[in-house]
Amino acid sequence: MSGLVLHNYFRSSTSIRLRAALNLKGLGYQYVAHHLRKGEHHSAAYLAINPQGLVPALELDDGTVLTQSLSIIEYLDEVYPQQPLLPGTPLDRARVRALAYAIACEIHPVNNLRVLGYLKSTFGADDTAVAVWFRHWVNETFAPMEKMLAGDPRTGMFCHGDKPGLADLCLFAQVVNNKRFDVDMSPFATIRRIYENCLAVPAFADAMPEAQPDAE
Amino acid sequence: MSGLVLHNYFRSSTSIRLRAALNLKGLGYQYVAHHLRKGEHHSAAYLAINPQGLVPALELDDGTVLTQSLSIIEYLDEVYPQQPLLPGTPLDRARVRALAYAIACEIHPVNNLRVLGYLKSTFGADDTAVAVWFRHWVNETFAPMEKMLAGDPRTGMFCHGDKPGLADLCLFAQVVNNKRFDVDMSPFATIRRIYENCLAVPAFADAMPEAQPDAE
Repeated sequence: MSGLVLHNYFRSSTSIRLRAALNLKGLGYQYVAHHLRKGEHHSAAYLAINPQGLVPALELDDGTVLTQSLSIIEYLDEVYPQQPLLPGTPLDRARVRALAYAIACEIHPVNNLRVLGYLKSTFGADDTAVAVWFRHWVNETFAPMEKMLAGDPRTGMFCHGDKPGLADLCLFAQVVNNKRFDVDMSPFATIRRIYENCLAVPAFADAMPEAQPDAE
Repeated sequence: MSGLVLHNYFRSSTSIRLRAALNLKGLGYQYVAHHLRKGEHHSAAYLAINPQGLVPALELDDGTVLTQSLSIIEYLDEVYPQQPLLPGTPLDRARVRALAYAIACEIHPVNNLRVLGYLKSTFGADDTAVAVWFRHWVNETFAPMEKMLAGDPRTGMFCHGDKPGLADLCLFAQVVNNKRFDVDMSPFATIRRIYENCLAVPAFADAMPEAQPDAE
């Protein structure tokens, strides 16, 4: 056990990214669940840990708290060089980060629980309208990303070559999340293939929502 | 002139980030404007450069195209070490990236032109409802970020110490963007102070929308 404490929620896709990263690095951690639908991430106790009130957050041995899943993953990759999550050259790293950010900056934030809640409470969106919204933003990014992956010889079993990395963490978590809104994945053959290849890796399978202690 | 070609739009906040980064590094570039409100980023010519149809994109000397502003900035920081945009230790880098991503992943994507357009076309949001939405997501992140900045001794003239970096690029661009929606910045003294310190640096002032050739 490394002394790491992971504050997270079984279904949160940013939590899935980070759990899979920790698993790939072979880092054990204490699992602390914060139930997002019950608002537990807005408790005073959790806001003292992460003033943003978001999961995941990672507490280090000395009590230092790291926030923002992608920042934590870059940190882990710098401090624990085993199973690198970024490739060796600046150009290749730029490719992998761009793929990761396409999901992390274009899909995930817009489809967050709190954004969907705002659509319902303020604009009167029903479940159908919310699902249409969710699928729209997935398609807006997955359609070009499918082309970018399929058309680049650097794509292998995973987004970049034959070992999983930062982009795969984001892709995997997004595809898991998509299932809650019946996203039609049939146009995205390469993305589906990479997802399946991830799922065959225990580090990813063990990061799935249903494998967590707070799963419902 | 470095042979770099910047595809961007004067008012886009991700373009502002990247222009300021290029300026801080002292890298000249050819400025190519794509008018977002006229949909020029969806032209076949631009989609051949960036299949995502988003700005900014940076073309290198050899025609390689980099996308996603934060990925491009990390690339520039790796290849051009002058004026480093990230600090020297993994823990400090994690802090700076987390501040940058809080803006890049929690505020900017939700307040993007295309998202605001969807609110209008599908949910019938008027200009007032769009402005309320915009300010809501700024406040959701700026409120905790103000605490995180004000309460950390590593905050200096800028987000991290006395030299501008990755987090300042995002903060600066967001504050510029906020002006279009009359965000009340009075609760955010530290963020305002950092913004003013950025504005006093020519690399940032020269990245402002009104200083660009396509400004209206």
